[in-house]
Amino acid sequence: MTYSAYIDIPTRGFSDIIDITPRVEAALSESGLTEGLLSVFVIGSTATITTIEFESGVIQDLKDAIERVAPRDIPYRHDGQWGDGNGFAHVRAALLKPGITIPFTSGALTLGTWQQVVLIDFDNRPRQRRIALQAVGER
Amino acid sequence: MTYSAYIDIPTRGFSDIIDITPRVEAALSESGLTEGLLSVFVIGSTATITTIEFESGVIQDLKDAIERVAPRDIPYRHDGQWGDGNGFAHVRAALLKPGITIPFTSGALTLGTWQQVVLIDFDNRPRQRRIALQAVGER
Amino acid sequence: MTYSAYIDIPTRGFSDIIDITPRVEAALSESGLTEGLLSVFVIGSTATITTIEFESGVIQDLKDAIERVAPRDIPYRHDGQWGDGNGFAHVRAALLKPGITIPFTSGALTLGTWQQVVLIDFDNRPRQRRIALQAVGER
Repeated sequence: MTYSAYIDIPTRGFSDIIDITPRVEAALSESGLTEGLLSVFVIGSTATITTIEFESGVIQDLKDAIERVAPRDIPYRHDGQWGDGNGFAHVRAALLKPGITIPFTSGALTLGTWQQVVLIDFDNRPRQRRIALQAVGER
Repeated sequence: MTYSAYIDIPTRGFSDIIDITPRVEAALSESGLTEGLLSVFVIGSTATITTIEFESGVIQDLKDAIERVAPRDIPYRHDGQWGDGNGFAHVRAALLKPGITIPFTSGALTLGTWQQVVLIDFDNRPRQRRIALQAVGER
Repeated sequence: MTYSAYIDIPTRGFSDIIDITPRVEAALSESGLTEGLLSVFVIGSTATITTIEFESGVIQDLKDAIERVAPRDIPYRHDGQWGDGNGFAHVRAALLKPGITIPFTSGALTLGTWQQVVLIDFDNRPRQRRIALQAVGER
């Protein structure tokens, strides 16, 4: 059996990191499935999904690390050609990929206690994001 | 239901980035499935799959970012032991992982308009690559 | 059909990289499924799963690359707030994500000959890790 749903969520951009665990868990509950895989996939090319302990210190640490991995203040060809000014966001999203797939069993995601599912929006402006959820499994 | 297929594709290596979206979409159509998950997984340890806006500027930006994340011109133990000269390619592939899983609904992948599926071949020579596609879902 | 199992495994932390391919393959065999997707997902926020050629040279190369991507010896806010001293491990795990999904067909994972599935434990101490395996597919 399959179940699909969307999470629509506003962001502030600039590596805004948002805990979406409650909404992902609500969708799984709504699906009625108890055993299977749940894919969490952000639509678009300037954002990602990952897991982290949702604690303000390490959230800032992750933002700092992203800044080191693909700095905002270096030249990007994308900006020269398109003038969007968000070349850094495209590169970050391509390196981190758009989604994750999480197992679930007995109706619960196999997440640790301090492991939350987060959306990271890399874009250089506030965005309205759509995240596709797709569960495949059994009751 | 399940459906499996392969994409066989020649590359030039050296972070060659190839848009495989049409072939992935063709496989999904061939599967006859309309709701579920599609895994796109490159076989081998010196390549990856991700999504990006397939535009020449940001494609080069991504290649430059990969060069900064795991430079080609530093010593790698793998090269000392095996003489392949592609230690950088192995490290890049391990950091970026071999595949992605994409939801599909109503027979279409949940990709954004400017979000293409790409193969990146990190190896230091042209390669013939095989990508495994596996869909799980329902009609 | 679905099948779930766990791998419980001790690590030494500090980017300990462990080949779990035989245990993943054993679980797939135990499942009786021949066509589908297998998710390998480490529970917790300071570890990851990826694939690499399991060869001592490139294993050390990967550890060195991880050290460059998110260095251990810089300040992390997480450590100031929580005193765990493992802020670097949280950041590394968030960047690399918790799991991978691997297709299987004819009862075998679509891995290359030199492509092993590994657990990387980034934490700053030995840990007892639990990895969730979930297969979805058909016989």
